[in-house]
Amino acid sequence: MRVVDLIAKKRDGLNLSEQEIEFFVEGITTRAIPDYQVAALCMAIFFQGMDRKEISNLTLKMAHSGEIVDLSGIQGKKIDKHSTGGVGDKTTLVVTPLVASCGVKVAKMSGRGLGHTGGTIDKLESIPGFNVNLKKEEFIQQVNKIGLSVIAQTNELAPADKYLYSLRDVTATVDSIPLIASSIMSKKIASGADNFVLDVKTGNGAFMATVEEAFELARTLVGIGKTVGKETIAYITDMNQPLGRLVGNSLEVQEAILTLNGEGPEDLVELSVQLGSSMLVIAGCSANESEARKLLESKLRSKKALQKFAEMIEIQGGDRRVVDNLDLLPQAKYKYDVKIAREGYVTEIDTKEIGLSAMKLGAGRGSKDEKIDLAVGLEMRKKIGDFVRADERIAVIYSNSQDVISGVAEKIRGAYKLSSVKPAYHDLIYGKVTSKDLE
Amino acid sequence: MRVVDLIAKKRDGLNLSEQEIEFFVEGITTRAIPDYQVAALCMAIFFQGMDRKEISNLTLKMAHSGEIVDLSGIQGKKIDKHSTGGVGDKTTLVVTPLVASCGVKVAKMSGRGLGHTGGTIDKLESIPGFNVNLKKEEFIQQVNKIGLSVIAQTNELAPADKYLYSLRDVTATVDSIPLIASSIMSKKIASGADNFVLDVKTGNGAFMATVEEAFELARTLVGIGKTVGKETIAYITDMNQPLGRLVGNSLEVQEAILTLNGEGPEDLVELSVQLGSSMLVIAGCSANESEARKLLESKLRSKKALQKFAEMIEIQGGDRRVVDNLDLLPQAKYKYDVKIAREGYVTEIDTKEIGLSAMKLGAGRGSKDEKIDLAVGLEMRKKIGDFVRADERIAVIYSNSQDVISGVAEKIRGAYKLSSVKPAYHDLIYGKVTSKDLE
Repeated sequence: MRVVDLIAKKRDGLNLSEQEIEFFVEGITTRAIPDYQVAALCMAIFFQGMDRKEISNLTLKMAHSGEIVDLSGIQGKKIDKHSTGGVGDKTTLVVTPLVASCGVKVAKMSGRGLGHTGGTIDKLESIPGFNVNLKKEEFIQQVNKIGLSVIAQTNELAPADKYLYSLRDVTATVDSIPLIASSIMSKKIASGADNFVLDVKTGNGAFMATVEEAFELARTLVGIGKTVGKETIAYITDMNQPLGRLVGNSLEVQEAILTLNGEGPEDLVELSVQLGSSMLVIAGCSANESEARKLLESKLRSKKALQKFAEMIEIQGGDRRVVDNLDLLPQAKYKYDVKIAREGYVTEIDTKEIGLSAMKLGAGRGSKDEKIDLAVGLEMRKKIGDFVRADERIAVIYSNSQDVISGVAEKIRGAYKLSSVKPAYHDLIYGKVTSKDLE
Repeated sequence: MRVVDLIAKKRDGLNLSEQEIEFFVEGITTRAIPDYQVAALCMAIFFQGMDRKEISNLTLKMAHSGEIVDLSGIQGKKIDKHSTGGVGDKTTLVVTPLVASCGVKVAKMSGRGLGHTGGTIDKLESIPGFNVNLKKEEFIQQVNKIGLSVIAQTNELAPADKYLYSLRDVTATVDSIPLIASSIMSKKIASGADNFVLDVKTGNGAFMATVEEAFELARTLVGIGKTVGKETIAYITDMNQPLGRLVGNSLEVQEAILTLNGEGPEDLVELSVQLGSSMLVIAGCSANESEARKLLESKLRSKKALQKFAEMIEIQGGDRRVVDNLDLLPQAKYKYDVKIAREGYVTEIDTKEIGLSAMKLGAGRGSKDEKIDLAVGLEMRKKIGDFVRADERIAVIYSNSQDVISGVAEKIRGAYKLSSVKPAYHDLIYGKVTSKDLE
């Protein structure tokens, strides 16, 4: 088999066979295929796409390019949850203890933030002492004991995907739905869970700019799950403004704790309960969504979900007192109110700009090895539909450096669009895709 | 400027600016741009194409990536001729002495054969003593003295193109008209001639499979010439059978000499006179094609063209006696008649197979550094439209190894299609494109 023939085949719109995809993935795993050929094939895939069979083969071969985490030591169905990434998206911190408090086993491996979007592992590390690097046995033991563990993905997880992603990043071939979907699912499958609930973000703060693209990605993800025998539900949800009010690592942990304590912002609560209800149904824990919602709401009211979160913090070496005392989380030195001279209803927020502003403060990283500042971030005082009076505060900057504040404030002001007309109702959840929708 | 942004731009169907193309060509010349990014951009160009301005910019920047041969020391217009490559295409050997004998200055740099097509330089090297590696000063001196020199392209000619071509070859991005056209024209421009007559081959032995593609390439080539101020005429000619009867290096020199001696096969004579007439007109030597044809035909009859060829051989160190005694050219040890059991009219010849058969005998090379055998090759005794009786000879194999003969004979038999119905007239020249056709 010659790589150049595979490239020509895909370039001409033909499908690659299972053997050809296996040859390709093996070649990138061992680096036997030079990166210029990998890049050319990625660009050909960008233009010609892949059918469901090709995507599933690519996903499975990439998942198997490294170790598949063996979760068979955990009794019952293991459910994983994944978001394609957004600004202020701390749903994992809320929903995982929430469903675990209902008895569903959650063994989750998460990633770190990159670019304008945050990552669960960075957020958890803002809890003093919290260890995200458990050994596999400790991880399994913990899930068996308390039903919940969230740890960092290892480098051994789907190494072919890791290499492919780094190459796509510098060859303008990231924005390909077959490649995005196989990348996400290869890591999910390698992490060993049985079923997945996915949150595909769409909007000006997400990778999928349009709702249509997000639905296509959702269908592709669910299609892979179906083909490989891992039941998957994908939600398409809004990222045209940050989720909740707080953006930044320790700030997002604060908001998650507030939410688990019954004081969360409406959108974060609603999304957590919605995703959680699908996790309960897919795990066979609840018969249907409305039953699941009731159960989840009771666990929020009873503070059982908050207790589960505290339990996880403690068993992973963190200071569990943070759930009662938010001041124990890292605090930024400077607080700055961002005011705006104009007046009107907020009709639009450039969410990517908000994410980049947080990054500028130090909350995010531009490249993999950059250090981040866990304490800094933003508080969004006004969201879409809110009225802003002249000179009213729209946001608060939490910073450890005075130098960047005025620049960031300017960026935030620029990210807001105001109008004298109140905007129509803003969707939070556009829809969901299950395997039944693909039939 | 970031390469990844250039790739994304082209991927999205936008045009690259002159500065962007300059940045790209400089980056590949100095190897500052990693080859995976170059490969991704080539594949994006394959899908999105380039407009005439982009193609001209790419051509010029690649031409200027190395030294531009300075032919200003040669008085008068310097005309170059180029073929996109075919099987048995020895037109250069006929047409260059032919037009030089009419007083047109021909300072030509040629390449070597690769794959199933031959190269002028290999053919000339089959003349004992012939030196294809003249110094620049010798080259110019010779053209000033006798009006003709054909030498080998140096490695310094358009190095960016050289690198780009080698990368395209392994990334399935060769078949892109903007990239093919800019590759051809960058080398032509770097060789320093004023005007070009090009022969775009089409058919089952050529790189352009269809007449439509060949016309598109011709228009693109002429468009580049127009934009850069180098008048260019491109012919679209047939390569659905070998040109003439002989294939192989010294065999093709033989046929060129026979043709210059008035004993050439009809197709080779016609193509040489047609291309030559355009060279005469473009050089301002003849007022129109019919006048040019008369002049060229007189030079064939008077043997002045053959004398010019002998003159070039002598001045470049070769044995000029070959023009009178073909036995002085390298001869193959074995001759084998290929017969066919079937009977009928030849309707089709798989010309690439014929080229590959010659290559199998040693007449061509699969990769750049392979050695070739100058004596071996094929004689086509039957061409399209000829009638073949049962057990009649269709071809002759000239080989230096007995081992390969039966395999090659089988290949040749398989390359012939016979029918009881005589095929319709077979076109030699499909048309031509001049800069006026682009207006």
